[in-house]
Amino acid sequence: MLGGLTLGRFTGGDPSLLRRINSAVVLHALRDAETPSLTELMRVTGLSRPTVEGVIEGLAESGLVVEVPPDPADARKQGRPARRFRFHAEAGHLLGIEVGAHQVRAVLSDLSGTPLGSHRHDVDESASAEERLERVRGTVAELLRRSSVARGTLWAVGVGTPGIVEADGVVRLCTALPGWTGLPLGERLQRSFRCPVLVENDANVAVVAEHWQGAAVGTDDAVFVLAGLSPGAGSLIGGRLHRGFGGAAGEIGALHLLGREVTPEHLLSTTGTPLHPLDEGAVARVFALAKEGDPQALEAVNRFLRRLVHDVAALVLAIDPELVVVGGWAAGLDGVLEPLREQLALYCLRPPEVALSALGEGVIATGALRLALDHVEEQLFAVEQAPLARR
Amino acid sequence: MLGGLTLGRFTGGDPSLLRRINSAVVLHALRDAETPSLTELMRVTGLSRPTVEGVIEGLAESGLVVEVPPDPADARKQGRPARRFRFHAEAGHLLGIEVGAHQVRAVLSDLSGTPLGSHRHDVDESASAEERLERVRGTVAELLRRSSVARGTLWAVGVGTPGIVEADGVVRLCTALPGWTGLPLGERLQRSFRCPVLVENDANVAVVAEHWQGAAVGTDDAVFVLAGLSPGAGSLIGGRLHRGFGGAAGEIGALHLLGREVTPEHLLSTTGTPLHPLDEGAVARVFALAKEGDPQALEAVNRFLRRLVHDVAALVLAIDPELVVVGGWAAGLDGVLEPLREQLALYCLRPPEVALSALGEGVIATGALRLALDHVEEQLFAVEQAPLARR
Repeated sequence: MLGGLTLGRFTGGDPSLLRRINSAVVLHALRDAETPSLTELMRVTGLSRPTVEGVIEGLAESGLVVEVPPDPADARKQGRPARRFRFHAEAGHLLGIEVGAHQVRAVLSDLSGTPLGSHRHDVDESASAEERLERVRGTVAELLRRSSVARGTLWAVGVGTPGIVEADGVVRLCTALPGWTGLPLGERLQRSFRCPVLVENDANVAVVAEHWQGAAVGTDDAVFVLAGLSPGAGSLIGGRLHRGFGGAAGEIGALHLLGREVTPEHLLSTTGTPLHPLDEGAVARVFALAKEGDPQALEAVNRFLRRLVHDVAALVLAIDPELVVVGGWAAGLDGVLEPLREQLALYCLRPPEVALSALGEGVIATGALRLALDHVEEQLFAVEQAPLARR
Repeated sequence: MLGGLTLGRFTGGDPSLLRRINSAVVLHALRDAETPSLTELMRVTGLSRPTVEGVIEGLAESGLVVEVPPDPADARKQGRPARRFRFHAEAGHLLGIEVGAHQVRAVLSDLSGTPLGSHRHDVDESASAEERLERVRGTVAELLRRSSVARGTLWAVGVGTPGIVEADGVVRLCTALPGWTGLPLGERLQRSFRCPVLVENDANVAVVAEHWQGAAVGTDDAVFVLAGLSPGAGSLIGGRLHRGFGGAAGEIGALHLLGREVTPEHLLSTTGTPLHPLDEGAVARVFALAKEGDPQALEAVNRFLRRLVHDVAALVLAIDPELVVVGGWAAGLDGVLEPLREQLALYCLRPPEVALSALGEGVIATGALRLALDHVEEQLFAVEQAPLARR
């Protein structure tokens, strides 16, 4: 809500705040239009010509706005062609990084989020935290080198990783990756960058990614289920990421602890010996056997799907989203959608839509990039806390 | 976020919008201070004297502001004592109504939410929808009569009731009350009032109530569990009620359908015959027997508590609230807190606090009143949609 007192402060006439507001307004208009003229900017923003000119001058000095060559059409209409400007998205760069169990992936963009390149490396599920961090550094260095982008032009770095991540970038709990619990991941990665590094849970950035350019575009109340032996979920509520009070929202993988039921690793085992929770190869083999009709594998897959469906259904009952996106795990996801739809239809008055992830293996790096972009847009466009320069 | 374009429109200088903003700012300041003078209002709002005077004049005309007698202390300091004003909360009234399984309860307040009276009637769980509506009308009429408040001075009416309630006030699903599913409750009650009638799920208004003046004061991420044979929950996320996409968030009572497990009515039965889901007497008897050490009752209560704890735990994993408030059901709630705390501690990194409802039997009517108050405050203080007069 546009609170009365906030505006009261504004009408109270703090001149530097007013300048920031006007800058944000003009920058917004610049980004939304192609190459507006001063007159067009005045019309869209409602600001006076001297104000727009002053703001444009300041933005040009900080590199965020450039003048473009005059439009010949303008010249025909008037004696002197109108000066035209555009948002200078190349003034800085953003990185999105996935630090996962099996891969490290980085994607690079300009300040508009337009992708400029990406790079990935396999990493072993048993790699130590130091090895994994080294792999991140190598992947980033290679991506920047190939894209001919200087590290100093990075404005923000987003990171998605398994586990419960605190607001300060510390991984509070992660059973999946060796040495990850307690790791100050934000601080460690920060050493490689001079810009802000934002760390977030992988399922959380995944839902942000699908909302940005995947299966949840236009859907502000969506849940992303990162399927696996220990599933996690990220929720968007009213278009905003719901992290939970302690950053642990969506940790539905812990549900089976409640009933002291058999662990997921046992559920999907055909031999009685538990699968390694990150051994995707073993999981894929069980799914493949089931497809061939192996009765034991079929039973294991059914047991496993029932559990996953139950966990997701509990989340849906709690949150009542418009859409559930399932992804993050290649093997056997097709088999999840139908039982999930059926179960949800049984007890939901208006069952949510169920869809597969549209972004595939890049979903977490893409969501991490969107985090970085959100951060920069807040800096550029928000009125209350944002100086226009980089922090 | 105080978006650039919104402010752009403002700085663009729409004079009626500016007047509304200034009115909201002054009204806010009036409500927060006791009886401010013009000078004090100028200082707090940053507005000029002529602007404040103009706004006060308009607010006085619409009955929202009254001048109070001068403070003798002012007279001693200056030649002419300062004019002082206050928010005229008595200019209108609000109602909060619970339409429950066993009671209809109404509470009346002024425009500040200060309670002026309340009234309740028992109603039978088997009463028809028409009987229940008639009971509501009777209860409201009696309350208004006793409080000597004219129906025409009501500005908003909030209603809390079991079931999934759509934004249009229709009860989409309610298994608890006869004839409730499909009832256009908002429209039916609207016939008795000339002001807006807002209908909401009972657990949802309960969490709003506890946040306003109960166990969740100061806690913006709280869940209220309305315990019972079919528990429901209401969630506050970032201080805002989370209704879910279809108004069905928190319907954890449906969880047991998932596992095709025994129904709660059977769980708590000591005879094999299911309890009636609304028969609180029978439930209380089982709890009482358990307290006396009856082994069958003890087993039934334990079964039942395990289920309730499981349902609440699933909700906590999904949402990760700071606080869980349990209430809405007199019998045996004490016995829920400890197992709930123990279970949550088992798998939550930072288990939420668990507390009993502080508002007791009035919680739903109080939350419904807060709904009405929120509506009026939005009318009075919001800038974008609010004309200052009543709708």
